[in-house]
Formats: sequence, C-alpha cells, structure tokens
Amino acid sequence: MLGVCYYPEHWPRERWAEDARRMRELGLTYVRVGEFSWSRVEPREGHLEFEWLDTAIETLGREGLKVVLGTPTPTPPKWLVDKHPDVLAYDVQGRVRRFGSRRHYSFSSRSYLEHSRRIVSLFARRYGNNPHVAGWQVDNEYGCHDTTRSYGPEDLRAFREWLRARYGDVGALNAAWGNVFWSMEYQSFEEVELPNLTVTEANPSHWLDFYRFSSEQVAAYNRAQVEILRAHSPGRFIAHNFMGYTPDFDHFKLAEDLDVASWDSYPLGFTDMDVLPVSQQDKLRYARTGHPDMAAFHHDLYRGVKPRWWVMEQQPGPVNWAAHNPSPAPGMVRLWTWEAFAHGAEVVSYFRWRQFPQAQEQFHAGLNRPDFRPDVGYFEAEQVARELGALELPPTHPAPVALVFDYEADWLYRAQPQGQEFSYRDLAWTFYQALRSLGLDVDFVRPGGSLQGYRLVVVPSTPIVREETLEALRSAQAAVVLGPRTGSKTESLGIPPELPPGPLQALLPVKVVRVESLRPGVDFEVEWEGGRYRSSVWREWVETALEPIGNFADGKGAIFQNNNLRYLAFWPTREFLAAYLGRLAGSLGLRAHPLPEGLRLRRRGDLTFAFNYAPHPQAVPAPEGAEFVLGGPTVDAYGVSAWRRT
Amino acid sequence: MLGVCYYPEHWPRERWAEDARRMRELGLTYVRVGEFSWSRVEPREGHLEFEWLDTAIETLGREGLKVVLGTPTPTPPKWLVDKHPDVLAYDVQGRVRRFGSRRHYSFSSRSYLEHSRRIVSLFARRYGNNPHVAGWQVDNEYGCHDTTRSYGPEDLRAFREWLRARYGDVGALNAAWGNVFWSMEYQSFEEVELPNLTVTEANPSHWLDFYRFSSEQVAAYNRAQVEILRAHSPGRFIAHNFMGYTPDFDHFKLAEDLDVASWDSYPLGFTDMDVLPVSQQDKLRYARTGHPDMAAFHHDLYRGVKPRWWVMEQQPGPVNWAAHNPSPAPGMVRLWTWEAFAHGAEVVSYFRWRQFPQAQEQFHAGLNRPDFRPDVGYFEAEQVARELGALELPPTHPAPVALVFDYEADWLYRAQPQGQEFSYRDLAWTFYQALRSLGLDVDFVRPGGSLQGYRLVVVPSTPIVREETLEALRSAQAAVVLGPRTGSKTESLGIPPELPPGPLQALLPVKVVRVESLRPGVDFEVEWEGGRYRSSVWREWVETALEPIGNFADGKGAIFQNNNLRYLAFWPTREFLAAYLGRLAGSLGLRAHPLPEGLRLRRRGDLTFAFNYAPHPQAVPAPEGAEFVLGGPTVDAYGVSAWRRT
Amino acid sequence: MLGVCYYPEHWPRERWAEDARRMRELGLTYVRVGEFSWSRVEPREGHLEFEWLDTAIETLGREGLKVVLGTPTPTPPKWLVDKHPDVLAYDVQGRVRRFGSRRHYSFSSRSYLEHSRRIVSLFARRYGNNPHVAGWQVDNEYGCHDTTRSYGPEDLRAFREWLRARYGDVGALNAAWGNVFWSMEYQSFEEVELPNLTVTEANPSHWLDFYRFSSEQVAAYNRAQVEILRAHSPGRFIAHNFMGYTPDFDHFKLAEDLDVASWDSYPLGFTDMDVLPVSQQDKLRYARTGHPDMAAFHHDLYRGVKPRWWVMEQQPGPVNWAAHNPSPAPGMVRLWTWEAFAHGAEVVSYFRWRQFPQAQEQFHAGLNRPDFRPDVGYFEAEQVARELGALELPPTHPAPVALVFDYEADWLYRAQPQGQEFSYRDLAWTFYQALRSLGLDVDFVRPGGSLQGYRLVVVPSTPIVREETLEALRSAQAAVVLGPRTGSKTESLGIPPELPPGPLQALLPVKVVRVESLRPGVDFEVEWEGGRYRSSVWREWVETALEPIGNFADGKGAIFQNNNLRYLAFWPTREFLAAYLGRLAGSLGLRAHPLPEGLRLRRRGDLTFAFNYAPHPQAVPAPEGAEFVLGGPTVDAYGVSAWRRT
Ligand SMILES: [Zn+2]
Ligand SMILES: [Zn+2]
Ligand SMILES: [Zn+2]
Repeated sequence: MLGVCYYPEHWPRERWAEDARRMRELGLTYVRVGEFSWSRVEPREGHLEFEWLDTAIETLGREGLKVVLGTPTPTPPKWLVDKHPDVLAYDVQGRVRRFGSRRHYSFSSRSYLEHSRRIVSLFARRYGNNPHVAGWQVDNEYGCHDTTRSYGPEDLRAFREWLRARYGDVGALNAAWGNVFWSMEYQSFEEVELPNLTVTEANPSHWLDFYRFSSEQVAAYNRAQVEILRAHSPGRFIAHNFMGYTPDFDHFKLAEDLDVASWDSYPLGFTDMDVLPVSQQDKLRYARTGHPDMAAFHHDLYRGVKPRWWVMEQQPGPVNWAAHNPSPAPGMVRLWTWEAFAHGAEVVSYFRWRQFPQAQEQFHAGLNRPDFRPDVGYFEAEQVARELGALELPPTHPAPVALVFDYEADWLYRAQPQGQEFSYRDLAWTFYQALRSLGLDVDFVRPGGSLQGYRLVVVPSTPIVREETLEALRSAQAAVVLGPRTGSKTESLGIPPELPPGPLQALLPVKVVRVESLRPGVDFEVEWEGGRYRSSVWREWVETALEPIGNFADGKGAIFQNNNLRYLAFWPTREFLAAYLGRLAGSLGLRAHPLPEGLRLRRRGDLTFAFNYAPHPQAVPAPEGAEFVLGGPTVDAYGVSAWRRT
Repeated sequence: MLGVCYYPEHWPRERWAEDARRMRELGLTYVRVGEFSWSRVEPREGHLEFEWLDTAIETLGREGLKVVLGTPTPTPPKWLVDKHPDVLAYDVQGRVRRFGSRRHYSFSSRSYLEHSRRIVSLFARRYGNNPHVAGWQVDNEYGCHDTTRSYGPEDLRAFREWLRARYGDVGALNAAWGNVFWSMEYQSFEEVELPNLTVTEANPSHWLDFYRFSSEQVAAYNRAQVEILRAHSPGRFIAHNFMGYTPDFDHFKLAEDLDVASWDSYPLGFTDMDVLPVSQQDKLRYARTGHPDMAAFHHDLYRGVKPRWWVMEQQPGPVNWAAHNPSPAPGMVRLWTWEAFAHGAEVVSYFRWRQFPQAQEQFHAGLNRPDFRPDVGYFEAEQVARELGALELPPTHPAPVALVFDYEADWLYRAQPQGQEFSYRDLAWTFYQALRSLGLDVDFVRPGGSLQGYRLVVVPSTPIVREETLEALRSAQAAVVLGPRTGSKTESLGIPPELPPGPLQALLPVKVVRVESLRPGVDFEVEWEGGRYRSSVWREWVETALEPIGNFADGKGAIFQNNNLRYLAFWPTREFLAAYLGRLAGSLGLRAHPLPEGLRLRRRGDLTFAFNYAPHPQAVPAPEGAEFVLGGPTVDAYGVSAWRRT
Repeated sequence: MLGVCYYPEHWPRERWAEDARRMRELGLTYVRVGEFSWSRVEPREGHLEFEWLDTAIETLGREGLKVVLGTPTPTPPKWLVDKHPDVLAYDVQGRVRRFGSRRHYSFSSRSYLEHSRRIVSLFARRYGNNPHVAGWQVDNEYGCHDTTRSYGPEDLRAFREWLRARYGDVGALNAAWGNVFWSMEYQSFEEVELPNLTVTEANPSHWLDFYRFSSEQVAAYNRAQVEILRAHSPGRFIAHNFMGYTPDFDHFKLAEDLDVASWDSYPLGFTDMDVLPVSQQDKLRYARTGHPDMAAFHHDLYRGVKPRWWVMEQQPGPVNWAAHNPSPAPGMVRLWTWEAFAHGAEVVSYFRWRQFPQAQEQFHAGLNRPDFRPDVGYFEAEQVARELGALELPPTHPAPVALVFDYEADWLYRAQPQGQEFSYRDLAWTFYQALRSLGLDVDFVRPGGSLQGYRLVVVPSTPIVREETLEALRSAQAAVVLGPRTGSKTESLGIPPELPPGPLQALLPVKVVRVESLRPGVDFEVEWEGGRYRSSVWREWVETALEPIGNFADGKGAIFQNNNLRYLAFWPTREFLAAYLGRLAGSLGLRAHPLPEGLRLRRRGDLTFAFNYAPHPQAVPAPEGAEFVLGGPTVDAYGVSAWRRT
C-alpha cells in the first residue's frame, strides 16, 4: 500500500478537500499528519485549537483515506521552552542547543516529559477512537541531529540516578569501570560527572554506560507516550518513524513497545552524506540513484527491528538537507518503492504531498510542486499504484542468511576504537554489501535473537557475548562466521580474564593474545584456499590448538574453525568476504553468484525482484521460462523486473 | 595622487618633521592618521590628550601635506571595555570576543554608540576646520575579522527591535518566514532568538533577516559618525576604508552616506587566503604578484560603490597576516599603483610609511624599514610619482559592460546554498574573470541601478528581483545575461508562487520547475553553437514555450533567450563564459579577444593600460602607431605599458 | 640497569610477592610505583590509608628491588576537585577541563599548590628514609595533554602578578609589547587579559610572555615539591618523568631542581602521531619500528637536560593512545632498550609490568599479559638483561657535535610564525636528522650553554640572542652554523633596532633587511659549491660587505661566513643540510658518511652501536678487525650490533 505525509496546517483550508480527492485518485491509502503541529494546536499554554485538525482528519477520512496521527513532541513551541528552559539539550561541547529548528529537547528533562504526557493525552483522548485514525506515530526521528545524547544538568542528574539503579553501591561502579586507574574513584554517585570535556579521554567504561543510559532514556520517553496511546486508542497500531543509520539508541529494545517500525528512505542524501560510507567512485556513479545497498540495508535492519514495517518517508525527488542534492534518475522513485515492497514493507509513504515553498525544507520536493502541479515523483508513484493493483504481493519469508546486528557494539567501539578506522558501522556494512553482491537475502537479528532456520549467520562483531548470545550460537544449525573482536569485552568493557573471545572459548577454543590497529597503507596479507587477500585496519594474534584454515603471510593463523563456528582474526575487506562467504554459501547449497555492478536481487515469497541501479539495461538471472510479473529478462536502466519462482 | 598611512604615535616626536619632509620629497599628497589613536588621545575616561595630535597634523601640514583624519573607533581602549562590557561582540559559537587586538565591539552596543559619538564629536570639533585636514575616514575596515555579525545580548535586543519595526505584527513575521513549519511560530517579538546554536539549521529566512539587520546596523553606526562630522567639519570629504571582499554588509547602501569609498589592496595576501578563490596552480604562479584579477575586481567594485574612490592602503612589500607572506616581485608595487589609477582611483595611499617593529604587524613592510632606511616599495613609489608628474590622467568613463553585483545574494545563498559549492562570491568572480580574460572593462552596478548606456550586462545571480530591478532590466538597451537562480526568491526567501524566475517571467517566459546541486565530479554537458562545455554544481529544469539556444546532453534546454534577455539554467564555468560572452560581445561590436596568461588591459579615458603579471615580457595589443605614454609595445615582466587611443 | 613501572593498587595483594620475585628473576633493578595512587592513599580528605603502600614497598624491597616513588599529584581525587573547583584548568576555548581522566589541574591554582604540598609532605615524611626507596619521581608527564597552559581565573590572577613582577610599571609593559599599536595600552596590571579569545590575533609579545609565565609556573610548582622531598628524604635522587616532545615549558630550567631527567619512549605512537613530524612514506615504512631518529632525538635532548637520565617508560608492545597502534616488529623492544643505553641512559624502565584489563589504557601492553602470562616484550627484556650482564657499559662522553636547542624559540615562533610552515620543532628536527643520517653523535645544549670542546655546533634558530649566548658563540672553537631568524628578535619579541641578527652583528656583520614566507610549491634555489638545492618556507634578503658562500638563483646571497660562524638566510631542507653539514664535518676531520636507509649509529665510550630499523640485514660500517660485543658485521633486521673501537 502507498501513503503520503501531509501538513494541512501549511495550506489554506479551502484546498484540503481537493488534496484529499487527488490523494485517493492517485491510489494512496494512508496519510500521516500532525507530528510538527504543536504550535497550531496549542499556540499558547493551555489555549487549545483542535478544530482545524478535526476538520483536516475528517476531510481526509471522507475520501476513504486512513490517518496516521503523529504526536507533536519533536517540536515543542517557543512558549514551552521559554517557560521551562531545562527542556533544552546540551551538546558535547557543553553548549545549550537552542530553539529555532527541531528536536530541541533532552530526553531527561522532567518538564518535558510532563508536558509530553499532557499533550499526548490531549491527542489520545480526542482522536483515540476517531474512525479515520488507523494508527499513531510517536514523535518523529528520534536521535536525528545527534539528539540522543545530551550533556546538561538534567542529563547529569538522570545519569546519576541510572548509575545508582544499575550498581547500587558506588564501590561496584568503581570496580566495574576500573576507576582505581588514574585515581578516578568516586565516593558517592553524586561525585560522578558526564564523560565529556575531560582533560584527555574519559574512561571508555564511563562512556559506554553513558551511551547505554542515553539509549534507555529514549526508550523510556517513548514508552511514556505509548502507554497513554494504548490506554486511549484501542485497536490502533503504534509506530515510530526512525531515521537512516542512527546507532545511538537500541532500536530493537525501543521497538518492543511498538507495533510497527517505519523509517525514512532518502537514498541520494544518505549516499552523499555517508550515512553508510560510500567510496568516492560510488558517490559519483550512484549520485542520482543512491548506492544500491543503501536502502536495502535499512529495509532489512528495520524488518529485523519489527516484522511489520513501513517506509514512512520515501524520497520523491531532490531534497534539501544534503551537501549535494541531485535530481533522481528517471524511474528511481518507482524503483525505490518497489524495492521496499520486495524487502517486505507493508506501506511506502512519500514525503511529502506538496513541496512547501518556505522555511528549512523549501527545496525538498514533494509529489506535487509548490505551484500545485504534479511533480515527477507523482507520475512514478502513480505507476507503482497501477502496478500494485495488478499484483498480489505474497508474504515475506525469512531469509537464508542472518546478520547479527549489535547496537551496543557501535557504542563500545566508539568508546574504545583502539584504531581510528575501527568502526562498527563500517564493519557491519562491509559484511552486508558482500552478501548482497552475491545476490543473497539477509535478515538482521539482534544479539541473542533466535538463529533457528538460518543456513548462514554472520556476526560482524559482538564484543560482549552474553549468555543468550552464547545459547543462540550453541543451538544454531547454521554455519557461523564471527568477525574480529567478537567476545573481546566484559559487560563493563574490560578485557575478559581468560582473554578474548571470553565466554566464546567454550565453543571456539582460541585465545587472542595480542591485537594491533593499522594506518591505511600498512597492509597485511591473508592466505586462504590458494587466494591472497590484502587487508589493513586490524589484526590479531591467536593461541590455539586448532589448525588455522587461513594464515597471515608470517605464518600465524588468521581464520579458525571449530565445528560450525568460524572466526576471522582480522578486519575483512568486502573483496575477501565476497570470496569467503560466496564459497561458504555455495558449500551450504545457497545460490550465491557475484552480481554485475548496479544489479541487485531480493525475493519476497515466490517472487524474485531485480533492481537495476546502472544507467544501462542488464540481463537478469531469471531461470528459463520464468513468469515475469514486472519487466522482463532485460531490466531497463533504473528499472525493475520481477518473476515468479517456477 | 599618492598618499601614505602614518602613525606619529609610534615614533618619537623628534622624527616627525623629517618624516614629513621626506613624504613631500617622495611626492606624496595625502597622509592618513589617527584611526587607532584612542588610547593616546583619551588614556583614561575624560582625560584628553590632543596636543600631540595637534602637533603631528601641524607638522605634516607645514610640508603641504593634506591630512585624512581617522576617527579612532576601531580600537576602543581597555578602560572603556572594562567599564562597559556590553561593548564586546559575541562570536557565532556564543563566546565573548575579548579585548587584545582590534574591532572588539558590537555595532548594536548602546554604550559603544554613545562613546563613539562622544569621541567623534571631540575630534570633529577640534579638527573640523583645521586647514590641513582635507577629509575624514570614519572608523576603519568595517567587517574585518568577521565583525559585522555579533551574537550577544545587545544584538538580540536590537534584532528584536529591528524585526518589530520591519514586521509590526509578529503574525506577519511568522507568515513571512513560514514558521508554521516545525512549530517555529512566535507569539511575540520577545520570543525571537538569534539564529545561531540551534539543534539543526535554523530557518534560512531567519538567517537572511539577521544578515540584513547586521548590515543595517553597520550603516546606522557609520551614519551616526557621519552626521557629527558633517555638522562640525564643512567642506571636508568623508570616507570609509573598506576591506577586500567583505560581503557581510551592503557597501552600496552604507556608501550613500559617504563622499569617497576607499579600500585596502593587498594582492598577495588576498591571493594566498582566497579572499576571492584562486586555484592551487594560480596560487603558485601568482604568489609574488597576486592573481591578475584580484585588485581589479575590487577597484571596479568600489568604483561602483562610489565614483570617487581611493586605495587607502596599498601593499608596499611583504605583509604579516596571511598564511604565507612572500616578497612582491620587483616592479609589482609600481604595477599595482598604476593599475589602481587605470581603474579610476583618485588617490593611492601606501600602508604604511614605516614598518613598526613591534606588535601584531611587525612583519608588515612599509615604504621605509624599521631602521629608517627606505625599503624597496619606496623606490617603486618614487618612480610612480615621477611618472605621474609627466602624465595628465584623463577622466574615467563608464565601461561598456556592467556586472550587477548583489550583496544580498551573498547572504541569501549563505543562508540557503542548497549545494555546498553554490557561493555567490564564486559565481560573481567567475563572470568577472571571464570578462577580464577577454580584455573588457567592467562597471559594477547595484541591483536596481541604472543600466543605461551599457552594451552588455551580466547578472551573476540576483535571487530577489524587486520592482526597480525589473524596471532597470526592462529599460536596458544592453544584451543581458542572467545567471542561475536569478528571480528564484521572494522578499522573505520563499519560492515565488509562480515558481522562479518569479517576477522576471514578465520579461522572460520560463518557469524553473526543478533544480539540483551536484558534487564535484558529477558533471553535465551543455551544447551551444556547436561547442560542448562540461559543468557541475547546479542545474535547472525549465518549462517554457521558448526554443532553447543551448541544451543539456539529455536534450533539455540550458540557455534561453527572449528579446535582449538571456538566462543560463546552470552554473557556468569560466571557460564557458569566456566563449559565450566573447561571442556575444563580438556580436555587439565590442572588442573582446582572449588575452595571454598574465596580461590584462584597462582603459581610462583615451588611455589603454596593459599590465603584465607574467615573469616574462609580452607583446601588448596596441594598434599600429599607438602613442605610448608608459612602456612600449612589449611590456616587461611585472611591467606596465600605456598608450593613447589613436 | 633495567626497571619497570608497577601499580600494586591494580592487583590483588596476594599477587604482589610473586610479581616481585618474577621482577627480580627477570633482572630488573628499579620499580616505579605510586604516581596515580592518591585516591587509594587518601580516599576521603584527611582519611589516610598508607598501609597498603607500606606493604607493597616492603614486598618489592624484600626481593632487593629499588623503589622510585611517585608523588601522586598528576591525579587529584574527585573529592578534592569538588571541594576546590579552582583546581581545574581551562582550555584555550575558555572551557573548564573536567575531572574524569588525569592532569586535571592548573599550575596556578593556589588550592592545588596547598594540597600538593600537603600530600607530598605526607609521602616524604613516611617514606623519605625508607631503605627501599632509592629516589623520587615528582608528579608525572608535566604538560601532557596540553596542560602547561591554562586560561582560567586563577591563571589570569597569577599572570598579572607575574607581569607586575617582571615589568614593575605598566608603562614598561606597554612599551615592551608596543601596545600603542591598536590602542592596546593598559593603565594598570589589573586591566591585562589572557591572550586567548581575542577578535583577531593578540599581540605576539602578549602570547610570548604568557608562554614564559606558563613555563615558569610549571617549574615553580615542581620546585615546591622538590623542596619538601629534599627536606625529608636525604640521599635520594629526585626525578621527573617527561613526555615526548613537549616544548611548552623549558625543561632545562625545570631540571635545574632535579637530579635525574627521565622520559617516555613510545616510538610507534610518536611516529604515528607526528610528535616529531614524519613523512607519509616513513609512517608506513616505520609503522612497526618507529622512525629511526625518534627515540634518539629525545635521548639526546634529555641527556642535554640532565646528564643523569633514564627512560622511565619504555614501550613494551602495542599501546592504546595513538590513532593507530601496531605491534612492534620482533626485536624492537630489545633494539629500543639498547639504543637508550647507547645514548647514555642510566636505566631503562618498561611501562608496565602487566597490562591492566580496564579503563583508558586497557590496550596498552605490558611485559606481562592480563592473563598473567609473559608477553613478547618480557622475553626481549630478558635478553637485554642477559646481554647487559655480560657487558660493562663505558661512561658516556661528550659528542663532537652540539645542537643548540631553544624552548623559547618554539614559543616565539608559535606566537609569530609569519608563515604557517615555520615551526621550530620542524627546523630543529631537520637539523638533527641531517646530522644523524651522517652517523654523527649529537649533544643538545641550551642557549647560552657552554660550547667548549665541540667541533661543530648547529643553532637551528635562536631568535633572542642574549649576552650569554653571544659569549658562548664568541668563545666557541667550533664551526658554528646558524639557521634563519637567529638573532631576529628582542627580549620582548620586537625587531632589533639594528635589524636582525641584532646583537649577533658583532660577530657576523650581516643585516637581514627583508624576509618572506612561502606556500609549499613556491620554491627557490640555493647554489652552493656547485650544487643546487631547492627549498621553500622561508627566505631572507641580506645586506653585508661579506662575500656570500652560497647564493639564491637571483644572485642574492644565501649563505654567509665570518670566521667560524656561518649563517643560512633560508629554510634548509634535510637534503641540503646533509650535504652542507657532511662536507663541513668532513673538513673538520669528523667521520660523516651517509648511512643507508634505516641504519643508525651511536657511540658510548669506546663502543660503537649500530641499530637496524630496516626489515632486512645490513652491513655495519665497522673497521677491519673490530671486536663485536653484540651481533656482528651484518646486523639483522631490527637488530643491534656493537663493537669496540680499536
Ligand atoms: Zn509547564
Ligand atoms: Zn561610559
Ligand atoms: Zn582543601
């Protein structure tokens, strides 16, 4: 199903009915409204003006459109901030982050939590049983603009409370963090500071706990809204709209309180801005299409976060917020939409109905131009609507391959990278791209999540291996590939007494006795099954009785295997992983063949989709006699083909 | 005429008479004094010590030198700052900008305005009718060191007042800025904040108004001084000394209160520091000469700002403030001086008489060395003085080509660049260099200024086309070339309801329905009259009934013409403009031929000057039998030739 | 002798005896303890817990180990900071530098000085006569993490007092700094501010005095501790442990109060982080060995600071704090240890006994792994211990070559670089590398230090030539090579009235009448004895009656000689200096031959050592029939050879 984001408050009331009619005619089902409306529903404290929103929802509903109503908390109005300055967040430099854009609040502000509950209650009571309201979106884009973490007095207060709850006794905290080092010991929780602005780096355990705290503050804030909505709006789904890669809070945990995960798919801006890192060559090559794994990574991640998932904001044309904002190649809006459905999306909702000719996003295209004429994206959406009408989408099945994705790993390696190129994001993205380049479908699984049914499991790096993770690995039937530093840390970011991989030694008897990080250009070579692969960034020295299955050029072991578990004692490149995982997948009976540049595959039920990010037609790897439901055996530049498994 | 900047307060009183005598002997006419003298004329509040300045002026006057007296407001003394801390400005990071160098004041400080009026009144009353005082310089180098804009409490107060005066009603402000977007609506002017330190980008309309306000604060501050000087010093001219490219305030508007515009010509430092951007190759090639269009651009700009204009500070040797400070190639001090006269300067004044061996500028050369011996620049100035004596300079006539220069465009594109390479400075500079490389003389005209008499007009980009601009274009006889984004914005930085180029559609029936910004390396091609030109940065899609006169490689129109108006729907390179404007100028009967590297031409009355920035002699394009008044048909490395039109 | 750094407070008391036994068995003599122990000896104010430290010292002593006891002042505990917030330093941006790592104090804090005296007195009284305590280390790593300079209220107060003491009268300060320039004159010392956060650059004389003040504050703070230790601990040596290149305070002056200078030798991290600048090529080539002059430069510098010197912290494996932390090549721990002894070290002490698996340095290797097994460095140290036992090390003699090293020059050129590449560090390092590449031994001498006995003296640049420097040069028998800008400044950073080289003109009759700084890529050529050498960065114009011995390509003089003094009027490259100093050394009868890449030599008494930083064996330049005491005529990759002079 298709949807759109709409801001009735931006347009004359006289136009709403026509807008609603044209949405229906375009084939849209859902309309998101309201998430930035606070200054219009409560222009002054306690002065409520809901009538316009009543009318807007009614107008949309009359055309049969279903409303997703956003709670307006991403943008508290100025009067609220002026009355309660403690609402504002502080940046890592210690400066107040002021009013004048959005997300200007700290998740730890008590005033803000109270006012959020108040305004959400008002929304929930008024619209909770409205027949046109199909569901809720809580707030919008948590963590966007680096807003997960705040460094002000309210945050310090809440952090101290959180630490007290976690450790009980300050001596336990000192022991966990190793505060005897550099005389950092505290005598009470009231002595603890935030980890920013220290003379040199703060204790990485201090940072890690601050990151955990910050993640939990987001979840707690979200839960406070969800509880009110559940109480007053029975039968409606509750969603949040996530951003592109925002690792600062644990989406798996937060989504436990949701029914639907949704996200913002802006492939061009994300490619230009390295939301996931893209080489300079690919930035040029894919400037008008987005990197071919950019949206897919997120589709798979958010499907892992929640089986019901949407694209709440789909890029419909050029945007405004990247350093460079190209026009999508012709066909890309359609391609992106189909790709979301291929990965299992329930709804794809375009952002936004009409380009708003003022303020920060005035250059952000919509389905319609500011002169009320349809824009390019409108026609591509129309085509998708037509095609969707002619095609029953089968249900989404689990993929054969799982990638264990670990938000905490991102925090931990940020707190203690040990080498400046060691980024969890980059490592997970490298594994993902290698799998995609082989045409494999991938599910994302949280650490400790069930691995049952998978044939191949990759764990880019999970430094803290807890009991549930160990159990999931122990019971996995799959071939499992563990990346470097897996199992290398205790719960409090120490080195395990038995050395890495710590508790994993029960399954994989190796001991990492030394590690090194390397400057780009300082390479080493790994030999495996007759091939030689250059790499850099990270290398480990391992003591073990196992015979290595791959070696460094100096003869030391680089790859180890015990039963179904394999361990990579180095930073793997995409080239190495494509070779290694390709051969491994082949040995497991998975179809895994290198795809040509720009071509990607994805299965949904008995359908196989092919997406062509290249500027020229390409042949798709469909079997003889495949029944094509979209396109054909040659997929156009920027085109889509789909065929039924025979 | 020649002049010099002199600081009697830096030298023993015993030396003044000799200095004055040597200035006269060198052939100088004007001496600027006093602009940094506050701590010497008022060492403590109300304790005035003017005697030394009386004597210094008298000493200079006795040698027949004319004094330009600077008001001492660029450097308030410490006692004043300590007594009124609100004098100090705040940087964009929210930090106080402290005493210890210069320009340490906010234009919005009420205390500082009051003290400025007081000290200027004292100067004006004491020297207003002094026979040796020929004119005044108000303050010095407004905006230098990023001082136009300040972000402190006084600035906020004044900004709110300015907004109240501009909008009257806060609802009008909300509507103009589109504050309904992201719930940014204010209930009163007291709620408005400054646009810095917001969570993500502030509303670009907010920024634009803050930039306008900041520009007007400079003009108002200047006017306050001018009014006092006019009242007490009849018959004296009033000047300000501007810096190199400082777009933060509108020089055209400020100069309405002045008689003379002057500026600081430091070609080497400006080239090293990219005051106007210079390629790495040209930075090396022109390290000891300055880029050959660097001084010329400013001469033409400030002549546009005010017909009477000076170079108040002419680089006489190496300076101190650039990242690299080379010694000028031999002859360059003479060349720069002649180039200023060729562009119409009334006076060229060297900075400074003698290198001061202490404090921040101790490595800034003067005409004399700190050991009281003449430096290299002295001898080159002496040669110019001799040559000037032998040559009657004719009056300056209007050029055949006008460049419409728009300070507000710089602010607007800074507030909303949409692509990080889109810089107004770079675009205007590209047009200018292309014209100069063709040997064309150029006048700078403010938006809405008269275009009568010009044969060719280029408008690099004027986003807000007001009625007077439209009228000037309507009545222009010239061929007019409009750059991208011209007419693309409303008064409050919105997209015009009829889409760009907004009101220009009355003269040029095109509609820009989409724009894109591009990463360097993502190119497109423009075809025009059989040539193909690669470009990047910016492209537009246009709907129109006109037949394009140039096309993009995908067949869409790139260049449009209606009557005498042409529109470029893309970011033009210097190479394209040299070809395009060259052919256009030829068709208009203007002599426009590509000049060899390093050679530049400029006409003044019936004289044509040639300047050679290259390290080898070059032939000048003088007609047969031309009468040379400087040099000859081959111009030396770093040399000047000039001939009379026959 | 060998030593180790040990933190008994990190380990269970039960392990101490075994640790001590194994230290003895390894052949260690010294153990440093205590420098980060404050939170354990005084967990709450006045609540003292020395018993554990008594026991630890006793346990070590019982094995015959000698203890170097650190005063715990680098890490004041949290309660102290909370009670006295004025302890904390401020960074140059004006922000408090908070608790949570180390060195979180300002040298100007009166509270901290008082508490430091109190805790040091407690240590001194308790352990001053302990038979196992052989010496003291005062604090640790002054200046590390940019902590020499602080910009808070306590610093401002102390700076004003320092200025009052230096100048007596504020008029004298104004005159010395040239404050008349830009009206910067003060009416009282209470008006003086710190030089940071000014609108544009502050007066360089202001900065220089602030740098001098900051240096003296460190020395004064150190002296306060030394006085207490001397009073209570007779017969024990007093050391400080310096960092790699930390020019912010004058180590020569501070060390006047010490008996022993020691330093931290981390060749890999220093190479990666450009503690002394390393080319990109050499960063790759020497990633696992460190640049072959990196440790040597510091050995020679700290031997110049104090004849008795140690390496207090020797890198034993990978570290944690660099951007990249490689594993040392096999053999390098031994090589580094021997190189320190070759340069005259009294003791080499490894950091640390055992890798601590928590907190900031958990990835910093020790001699032992966190699982209590010996690490690679242990075995290399064991080999050195064995080799040392078999070899009597002769005393260290003065080198034939002296390098005059001037901390104040670093401050002065930082305050007024005039060209952004002009760095004192880079210049001194260039001279040093050139000398080392010729196989010459070098002593570091402070400005004004005796030059008697040297055959060749290089002065990279000493801008302020005081009477004692002039006298040392006058009486030197050596050939002296003076770098650019030597003698170019007065005591208060002005240009000398007689122009540079100021007072040096008495010995070398040249006058520098112009200087220039150049962008990389803007080159000039120097001709000398038939060779041509390209250079950049800095050039001077000289007036003199002397005939130059080298010339610029434009014919102006570049190298001048008068008697035994030579002056280089340009920035010399390493290539030029290797040629110039090589020929000069040869003419003086010194053996100076270019060494192959990666090979370095150093003499101690009658022994000559060769160190091979290359990954392949190399022949050493030993004479026929040399008696090898380590290795042989071919030195292994990463190996050491040593032979007795015959
Ligand atoms: Zn409230
Ligand atoms: Zn006052
Ligand atoms: Zn106290």
